[in-house]
Amino acid sequence: MAKSDYNSKKEKILKLQSLKLKAKRIDVMAGGLVVVLNAGFAQQNDIFTGYRIRVKHNSSQIIAIVDLTNDMVKPGEIGLFHEIAQELGIKKEANVEIYLTRRPESIEHIKEKIEGIPLKEKQISAIVTDIMANRLSEAELSAFMTASYIRGMSDDEVVGLTDAIVESGEHFKISKTPVLDKHCIGGVAGNRTTMLIAPIVAAAGCYIPKTSSRAITSASGTADTMEVLCDVTLPIKEMQKQVSKIGACIVWGGAINLAAADDKLIKIRNPLSLDPKGVLLSSILAKKKSVGAKYCVIDIPIGRGAKLTDIKEARALASDFINIGRRLGIKIESIITNGEDPIGNGIGPALECVDVLKVLEGNGPRDLTEKSCILAGKLLELCNKAKVGTGATAAHKLLQNGKALAKFRQIVEWQGGDAKKLSSKNISLGKYKYSVKAQKGGRISHVDNKMLSRVARAAGAPLDKGAGVYLYCEKGDMIGKGSPFLDIYSNSENKLSVAIKVLEGYGPIETEKVLLDTLR
Amino acid sequence: MAKSDYNSKKEKILKLQSLKLKAKRIDVMAGGLVVVLNAGFAQQNDIFTGYRIRVKHNSSQIIAIVDLTNDMVKPGEIGLFHEIAQELGIKKEANVEIYLTRRPESIEHIKEKIEGIPLKEKQISAIVTDIMANRLSEAELSAFMTASYIRGMSDDEVVGLTDAIVESGEHFKISKTPVLDKHCIGGVAGNRTTMLIAPIVAAAGCYIPKTSSRAITSASGTADTMEVLCDVTLPIKEMQKQVSKIGACIVWGGAINLAAADDKLIKIRNPLSLDPKGVLLSSILAKKKSVGAKYCVIDIPIGRGAKLTDIKEARALASDFINIGRRLGIKIESIITNGEDPIGNGIGPALECVDVLKVLEGNGPRDLTEKSCILAGKLLELCNKAKVGTGATAAHKLLQNGKALAKFRQIVEWQGGDAKKLSSKNISLGKYKYSVKAQKGGRISHVDNKMLSRVARAAGAPLDKGAGVYLYCEKGDMIGKGSPFLDIYSNSENKLSVAIKVLEGYGPIETEKVLLDTLR
Repeated sequence: MAKSDYNSKKEKILKLQSLKLKAKRIDVMAGGLVVVLNAGFAQQNDIFTGYRIRVKHNSSQIIAIVDLTNDMVKPGEIGLFHEIAQELGIKKEANVEIYLTRRPESIEHIKEKIEGIPLKEKQISAIVTDIMANRLSEAELSAFMTASYIRGMSDDEVVGLTDAIVESGEHFKISKTPVLDKHCIGGVAGNRTTMLIAPIVAAAGCYIPKTSSRAITSASGTADTMEVLCDVTLPIKEMQKQVSKIGACIVWGGAINLAAADDKLIKIRNPLSLDPKGVLLSSILAKKKSVGAKYCVIDIPIGRGAKLTDIKEARALASDFINIGRRLGIKIESIITNGEDPIGNGIGPALECVDVLKVLEGNGPRDLTEKSCILAGKLLELCNKAKVGTGATAAHKLLQNGKALAKFRQIVEWQGGDAKKLSSKNISLGKYKYSVKAQKGGRISHVDNKMLSRVARAAGAPLDKGAGVYLYCEKGDMIGKGSPFLDIYSNSENKLSVAIKVLEGYGPIETEKVLLDTLR
Repeated sequence: MAKSDYNSKKEKILKLQSLKLKAKRIDVMAGGLVVVLNAGFAQQNDIFTGYRIRVKHNSSQIIAIVDLTNDMVKPGEIGLFHEIAQELGIKKEANVEIYLTRRPESIEHIKEKIEGIPLKEKQISAIVTDIMANRLSEAELSAFMTASYIRGMSDDEVVGLTDAIVESGEHFKISKTPVLDKHCIGGVAGNRTTMLIAPIVAAAGCYIPKTSSRAITSASGTADTMEVLCDVTLPIKEMQKQVSKIGACIVWGGAINLAAADDKLIKIRNPLSLDPKGVLLSSILAKKKSVGAKYCVIDIPIGRGAKLTDIKEARALASDFINIGRRLGIKIESIITNGEDPIGNGIGPALECVDVLKVLEGNGPRDLTEKSCILAGKLLELCNKAKVGTGATAAHKLLQNGKALAKFRQIVEWQGGDAKKLSSKNISLGKYKYSVKAQKGGRISHVDNKMLSRVARAAGAPLDKGAGVYLYCEKGDMIGKGSPFLDIYSNSENKLSVAIKVLEGYGPIETEKVLLDTLR
């Protein structure tokens, strides 16, 4: 039988005609690039839901995904959402021309991933490129995440994805060495080690271009807390100048265009809370690679109320970070820490700021001081600024001799803060306060991170900088009846009362019981 | 350590407050139930993309999924798409109240499916219920389809899904027996056996409440072809009366509410062309169960240009139909047929109608006649109206003695057609015609279903009933140079010229070559 060359012919003739349509502006953001056609009209022209079309207006054109409607758009019309109308420069009425186009090639790669075929670097890069250009629909992106979750990702795929994410954004460039970074997978309230590690390692002569996040579901992110003292939205060029000059910055990652695809990937992961391990690793390590870090510590807190509870799972994640880091040219030390209860006393931007400043002033919470010195010490050991086993002591010394505080002042000043007034005593807290005391004595068996974060959020954190929770006790403390448990702060009386109700509903602090259960 | 009852507490306190918002109508259909909030405002109130909220207006309320925007909706406003505004009875300005609600429970089941945990009947039913109520987002539905595709579905799951789909719609009720049905998985042009099988088995004293589809990507569906002769949009009660009285109907399934969830499932499957086998089986068998069929033949055409090309794959699908059918109380015979080239001469509604009427009149295309009698015969054998091995002969007899034609007249008349004028000579074809002749002689090695369907569609089918392709030859024919190959019909000169270009681009008819390839 004759061999056919249909496939090549199919490629040539997708659609011979273009269609001229009347544009109808729809003043709403669609999120993706979607256009709306009349269902009957579309059927007549062999256009179906999910088809891609090229929409042309004068010299502008855009590729969009077709959605159908029965009554909102008439035959011969095309509904253009805000983003598309803007992109095409259509303000009022206009005529546009549409052409059917091929589906992006990356959809084939998504289907390969679904079939269990490992993707090559080039294919992953094509997917990321199409994600950045809004060429994939929500359904397609969700299928990719689901398949990556079920099939898993090989190290090659993770490295490919990381590189593609790095390529999608700008790069932080610096000629100094060593460049360090740190990351915490999160889940522990009050865990503001970054604001201590950065000045300590910079005071030791290292460079740390630290980008941090704002709170998503917690009471405060490092960027929210740092913002109590100074600006955290610096352009990347300013950041480069600052780090070259004084060794460190602490800024909000969302304001700069490093690893741009990552924000999109996070948005995709959210709907089903799917977090394919490979995507999580790429997401974190792409940021480290984008700032040019060669040494990095990863803090993995575990325990009840933290993100991970199982030490085996934590160890596996720890190894993954190290392996992928090696492939990316980043020397990583993963540190599994106790995440059973909050770090420091404050939960909420201003309250956490007080903790950080107290540590720098020499009288901060014991756990925050110790944890920050351990992590900073590991970084100094990693880059050979300290001998193995001596890093934490070196870090402590930089706190004690005031060099870390001096460095922190420099950072705050460079970022537009008032370095002269920098003191734990000058931080203003919420004007309304509610104190909670222990109703019975005993040993404290649990202080819950998640629940306390919710109380602090109910009080107004992170937008109300002064809102939050101040803890008087930690897990293991023996307390008497009537001892102070915690204070809630807020600048809104109404929010304070809501926070009290949330607190009473959850009961985030537990005292030990002798009798756990009885059966007969 | 004390056991905590956080989880039960969490259930109680999801959100203590409700919010009052100003409704802003957005005059566009969103497809799903989506509302739009201002991004900053939402963050302040701990509401994130994808959260579900209950929107209340006077005594109406609805559950919708949150989408965020930066500028289209102001703080304190809520953007309501067409469907939601209508559902809440909001015409112009109005105030609404919103409450955070729990995510539908079925999302947990989708996540279980992703994790590889088999679902129970009740859980599948919950997913289908939420699909019907538009409670799941596109991303969630896509994740469910992707997971079902990768993980596969057990027989229990397929049966559960089928039952849930059946429950989602109305049921066709009839007190007569035996009730039969047939199905073809599609892909073969001109394959209009249903219009012959239905009158044959009804003439034999059986009952066949046949619902058919319209063309999606083909040139004509059975419903489109039948519509050339009479109405195909009957309410279910009319259908019941008709089938009880004369034994058969041939109507469009889309006009009635049988197996309602199936339409939604088809829409979900489309974006990535994912067709999890279990969902495909459920989709088809739910329709059979909804009409109360106890006996059913499934036509599975294979071959180049058809949907399936591999006999092993076809056999596996055939067995699946039989097994799941048994669990549902439907006795199934799966028949693997030759789908290498079109059936009959016509492709397009009117042209196919001519073929069908010619068969009933005793001088139709050989392949269409034979295939219809084989399938009808198998049905008669299945329900014991004919002994095994004699069904096809019995079917032929009903064609020859005119009883099938008489029954078909009854069906057409009942559905509002003009039974007196019913003749293959009274069908009007497209007024423009273009004839194609063989440019060289030889044996015809391939006639391509897909390509010819595209030519017929380019000519205007299925909306232009008279448009399509008439074939003069079939695979295996020896033809001479200049022999007629095919005619293209259309009621539009412009579309005819497009169809000619498509034809020339594809070259759907191939003649055998001796030399296939040469290497040196």
